[in-house]
Amino acid sequence: MMNLFVNYYQRPIGQYDFIEVVILFLIYVFLCMFVCKLIECIRVLAAVAWEPGKPLVIEEVEVAPPQTMEVRLKILFTSLCHTDVYFWEAKGQTPLFPRIFGHEAGGIVESVGEGVTDLKPGDHVLPVFTGECKECRHCKSEESNMCDLLRINTDRGVMLNDGKSRFSINGQPIFHFVGTSTFSEYTVVHVGCIAKINPAAPLDKVCVLSCGISTGLGATLNVAKPKKGSSVAIFGLGAVGLAAAEGARIAGASRIIGVDLNPKRFDEAKKFGVTEFVNPKDYDKPVQEVIAEMTDGGVDRSVECTGSINAMISAFECVHDGWGVAVLVGVPNKDDAFKTHPMNLLNEKTLRGTFFGNYKPRSDLPSVVEKYMNKELELEKFITHEVPFSEINKAFEYMLQGDGLRCIIRMDA
Amino acid sequence: MMNLFVNYYQRPIGQYDFIEVVILFLIYVFLCMFVCKLIECIRVLAAVAWEPGKPLVIEEVEVAPPQTMEVRLKILFTSLCHTDVYFWEAKGQTPLFPRIFGHEAGGIVESVGEGVTDLKPGDHVLPVFTGECKECRHCKSEESNMCDLLRINTDRGVMLNDGKSRFSINGQPIFHFVGTSTFSEYTVVHVGCIAKINPAAPLDKVCVLSCGISTGLGATLNVAKPKKGSSVAIFGLGAVGLAAAEGARIAGASRIIGVDLNPKRFDEAKKFGVTEFVNPKDYDKPVQEVIAEMTDGGVDRSVECTGSINAMISAFECVHDGWGVAVLVGVPNKDDAFKTHPMNLLNEKTLRGTFFGNYKPRSDLPSVVEKYMNKELELEKFITHEVPFSEINKAFEYMLQGDGLRCIIRMDA
Ligand SMILES: NC(=O)c1ccc[n+]([C@@H]2O[C@H](COP(=O)([O-])OP(=O)(O)OC[C@H]3O[C@@H](n4cnc5c(N)ncnc54)[C@H](O)[C@@H]3O)[C@@H](O)[C@H]2O)c1
Ligand SMILES: NC(=O)c1ccc[n+]([C@@H]2O[C@H](COP(=O)([O-])OP(=O)(O)OC[C@H]3O[C@@H](n4cnc5c(N)ncnc54)[C@H](O)[C@@H]3O)[C@@H](O)[C@H]2O)c1
Ligand SMILES: [Zn+2]
Ligand SMILES: [Zn+2]
Ligand SMILES: [Zn+2]
Ligand SMILES: [Zn+2]
Repeated sequence: MMNLFVNYYQRPIGQYDFIEVVILFLIYVFLCMFVCKLIECIRVLAAVAWEPGKPLVIEEVEVAPPQTMEVRLKILFTSLCHTDVYFWEAKGQTPLFPRIFGHEAGGIVESVGEGVTDLKPGDHVLPVFTGECKECRHCKSEESNMCDLLRINTDRGVMLNDGKSRFSINGQPIFHFVGTSTFSEYTVVHVGCIAKINPAAPLDKVCVLSCGISTGLGATLNVAKPKKGSSVAIFGLGAVGLAAAEGARIAGASRIIGVDLNPKRFDEAKKFGVTEFVNPKDYDKPVQEVIAEMTDGGVDRSVECTGSINAMISAFECVHDGWGVAVLVGVPNKDDAFKTHPMNLLNEKTLRGTFFGNYKPRSDLPSVVEKYMNKELELEKFITHEVPFSEINKAFEYMLQGDGLRCIIRMDA
Repeated sequence: MMNLFVNYYQRPIGQYDFIEVVILFLIYVFLCMFVCKLIECIRVLAAVAWEPGKPLVIEEVEVAPPQTMEVRLKILFTSLCHTDVYFWEAKGQTPLFPRIFGHEAGGIVESVGEGVTDLKPGDHVLPVFTGECKECRHCKSEESNMCDLLRINTDRGVMLNDGKSRFSINGQPIFHFVGTSTFSEYTVVHVGCIAKINPAAPLDKVCVLSCGISTGLGATLNVAKPKKGSSVAIFGLGAVGLAAAEGARIAGASRIIGVDLNPKRFDEAKKFGVTEFVNPKDYDKPVQEVIAEMTDGGVDRSVECTGSINAMISAFECVHDGWGVAVLVGVPNKDDAFKTHPMNLLNEKTLRGTFFGNYKPRSDLPSVVEKYMNKELELEKFITHEVPFSEINKAFEYMLQGDGLRCIIRMDA
């Protein structure tokens, strides 16, 4: 046996004994297993954005194993949100490329890193762009979901643990996006950004709860909190606004007034229980005055889901004095200023903003999934398109054309 | 007897029979009694403001009886508030003179008009500048105290019932002020603007609850609602702000940060549980940044009691993201604009305004009086001066000099 190790380099292959070949093979297999055990990286397909605004390219990417407090997920379904498109176009911010986008998704835990005790392989989960460490003042506060450690960070393209990416192509790192990067068959996510959900929930439906739909729904249910029979104005009838309308329907609002500059949005909105429509362009006076006239002084609640500063001001000013509450959801531009006469506030109107509908991702999302499971919440009507992963760029086209609400991307197809 | 009625005009006085004189006198007395019964007006002393900014003049004034839903009160104690001085100076509005000012007071019901069932002569009451009809949407809402019928109206100088004044001097009407006009021994007030209180409560103390003190107290207790152990910033350390601080003390706040441009206010404020002081003039950077640094990101609650638009903006921006609530109390100028970056709202800060501390005058004031009775609330420290009614103009001088907090005017002295 000694000469096996001494001489096997020099001899031509035909000269090895059968027993030697078997032993060498076994050594090779053990070595591979050892290295894989050590590194555990896998090679998967991911849609890489190489440059701002250029179509994504499906590439073979190495995904490193999860480190301390991280989890590697197999993504089954992902959907496209405006925020992906916004950072992919990279018109407003410093571009960070190459990058793997995607943050609305449903998946299954493949492996967990050190310190992860809440999750195990096989768990069904929703990754979320913002997290819940359960330790900081925000996580301990009943009111806030803006975790100090894991709050959304669109500028960071690496993992918190070591400041490195878990994605690479031939050694070149590919940046993460908001800690989720779900446009990949597998991804690595901080355990604090993962909601474990009912395994019976269909991931191709509940995946949309990762971002926009929960944001709009929670803005109404958790923040505006309309009472049964009340009136609610929804500014902006995109996916987020329609989810806010769905929240108003669930809360039992009797009037849901949809406000949008785009009259095309009104047809879709009828499915969401919106009872009346106002297009600000149809009037000479400010839309807040139109709404005040329609509602004998103002609506009980309003939810702004546009990102337009004018809509934010109108949404605030159109609520009734004494009890009206306006909730801002839309992400404004850098230089926008919210401006109103303070008398509007002294008249006992309340102005609040919300982030991710005030849901704490780990603590609260499972119950939103249950709302869907017990048919309180409808999700099907938000899903207007579906494409296989190979055609992910079509999802971008639909969104850029303003066609539909959510496009599901099937990773297995 | 016939010739008594036919001829008494023509005869000189000496020529009347004794019996005729007696009969005439009795007729006169009965007529007077009849007319008084009919009119029930009384002659009392009141401090009349004849012209803007000129000292009040104590005059004998006729006070007509209360009409439908009105109550005539004997005022025992009244105190002076900035709002009286503001409308007496009449620099900002159309002047309405002659007028009887005064709206913080304690008194006793003398008589009631038709339809008044809640009150009877002898009841101890606080008149309030804003009312509660108990019928309108605001009064029926749990959230609002801005009664549609009896909400404060500083432009109206007459009673709601018939658009007339109940005060006159030799037939010349004298205007009311905010429906209370308590600078008079007797006044007429709508029943909806009167809180019936515990008759054991000393009126010379609880009279200050009619306006400013309740406003500040309620702003903290009803609207900001700080939790035990939390941090609260109070902008403006006048009577209203110190009452807001008193509310924070009652709620168990552990840090009460007083903010004022006038360092003289800080000494007084120590008695009100204010633990730290910030004078914006002492810093180069905006006071919201100073406070954020002092409190690791911002205070839990802030209450603005200045009327300055800059303080309103600072009060909003100095609260912590995630859970901070800012409450605006101060009355702004006509052309002021509240201006902030909407990102401050999306970071889950809440901005609310309040009117009269969100107290419903009739439903809620009696329980505030009880807070004083059971020693939860201290009122003595707000009362820094006392004058007899005849020296009411001294109270104006104290206020104009910024001397003290509240001056009690004793009507019986
Ligand atoms: N706070 C959060 O956590 C969070 C999460 C997701 C999305 N958002 C934000 O929510 C907003 C809506 O997202 P979406 O995906 O539904 O967008 P969307 O573009 O699909 O819909 C926005 C709608 O608003 C309408 N609109 C624009 N300006 C208007 C105005 N002045 N008055 C009336 N309608 C107007 C548009 O016509 C459009 O129909 C965006 O600003 C997005 O960034 C916030
Ligand atoms: N909403 C209501 O129902 C109601 C009722 C009563 C009074 N008020 C309002 O409350 C406010 C306070 O009343 P008050 O009687 O206590 O007045 P006050 O004048 O006695 O006190 C105001 C204090 O604010 C300070 N101040 C002014 N500008 C400031 C700034 N930029 N930063 C910090 N401090 C500043 C002043 O130095 C002063 O000490 C007024 O605006 C009044 O009209 C409202
Ligand atoms: Zn946290
Ligand atoms: Zn999103
Ligand atoms: Zn009312
Ligand atoms: Zn007052």
